[in-house]
Amino acid sequence: MKPVLSQPPHVDWLTGAFSRTPLLRKTTRLADLPGVFADHSGWQQADPQQIVYDVEMLDTLSGSGELFTGVTHLYPGKVGNEYFMTRGHFHALREQGEVYFGLRGTGLLLLQDEQGEMHLEPVVAGSVHIIPGYTAHRLINTGTEILSALAVWSSTAGHDYAALAGGFAWRVVEENRQVQVREVQNG
Amino acid sequence: MKPVLSQPPHVDWLTGAFSRTPLLRKTTRLADLPGVFADHSGWQQADPQQIVYDVEMLDTLSGSGELFTGVTHLYPGKVGNEYFMTRGHFHALREQGEVYFGLRGTGLLLLQDEQGEMHLEPVVAGSVHIIPGYTAHRLINTGTEILSALAVWSSTAGHDYAALAGGFAWRVVEENRQVQVREVQNG
Repeated sequence: MKPVLSQPPHVDWLTGAFSRTPLLRKTTRLADLPGVFADHSGWQQADPQQIVYDVEMLDTLSGSGELFTGVTHLYPGKVGNEYFMTRGHFHALREQGEVYFGLRGTGLLLLQDEQGEMHLEPVVAGSVHIIPGYTAHRLINTGTEILSALAVWSSTAGHDYAALAGGFAWRVVEENRQVQVREVQNG
Repeated sequence: MKPVLSQPPHVDWLTGAFSRTPLLRKTTRLADLPGVFADHSGWQQADPQQIVYDVEMLDTLSGSGELFTGVTHLYPGKVGNEYFMTRGHFHALREQGEVYFGLRGTGLLLLQDEQGEMHLEPVVAGSVHIIPGYTAHRLINTGTEILSALAVWSSTAGHDYAALAGGFAWRVVEENRQVQVREVQNG
C-alpha cells in the first residue's frame, strides 16, 4: 500500500495570490465596462486598457454540487468621482449563494435583492460576507490599494448580467474626500 | 435615502476565531467517538471528557443554494499511536462538495470516495482543499498545536456518518516519531 499524498494549492492570506497553476484568469478593463459608470464622458476619456479587476480561480471540477474558489483583485481608481467596482451580477441559478472573504484593501460589498432591497458591507482583511441566494453583488474599491477578496461559490451558479441591465440603485462616489453613497436618479 | 451599512463578521486568519456571535458551536469529546480509534483499550483508558475538536459556524441562512461557513479546531493528541482526528463523513447529499482552507497547525486531510479511492493532502496555513462531491473527508492533527481549518459547504449537504461505519481504510499513526499511514486490516 502506497499512500497517495497530493500537494494542494495554497493561497497567501495577505495578497490573495495562489501558489500554482492551473489557474483560470479573467481580466476586465475599462473598455469592457460600457455603461457601468455614471460618468460616460469620464469613461470615454479614460484609458480603455486600464485594468479594473482580475479574477483568478482554481481550475477544479465543475458540475452539480461542486464548489469553485477564486480571488478578485479590484484595482484602486475612479471614473469621474465613482470608485472602481466590479460589474456585479445575480447568479443565473438565482438560489445560489456565495461567500466572500476580504483579504486586503478597503472597500464595500453592495448587495441588492430582487425586490431592490440593498445594503453595504465594509470589506477589509478578515471580513466574512455571506451572500444569500437571489442577491446581486458588486465589489467597490474605496481605498488606495488593491482590494482582494476570496470567494467560494457553486460551480453551477453562473452569472446573469442582463437582469442588472438597469444597474444597481446605489452608486458609491468620492465627494469632499469622503466616501458617499448616492441613489441613482431615474427618468 | 439612508444607506444601510451592515458590519459583517470577521475571521482571524491566524487562529480561525470569529469576531462575534451568533455562532453555532459543537464540541466533540473522546466519549463521543466510540469505535473511531483503532486502539479500543487506549480509548477506554483516556479521559472521556477530553475535547478532540470544536466546530464553530456562522448562524446564517439555510436552504437550497445557501452556503455555510465554519471553522474546525482539532486538538493535538493521540489515542494509542493514532493521531486525533475528526469523525469524518460523506455528505447526505452525496454530490455536494466542500472547500477547506488550512489556517494554523499541521495535519492531513484524508479523502476517500465511494469506490474506496483515497488520497491525503497536507493541511497547513494557506492550503486550499477542494473536496469534490461523493467524497468522504476527515481531518487529522499530526502536529503539536491546534489544527484549524475554515470550511465552506452547502447548507443542504448534511452528514452521513453511517455510510462510513466501516471507517476509512487508512489510519494515520506515529511510529518512531514519524507520521505513518497504515492500511486497515480487515477480517
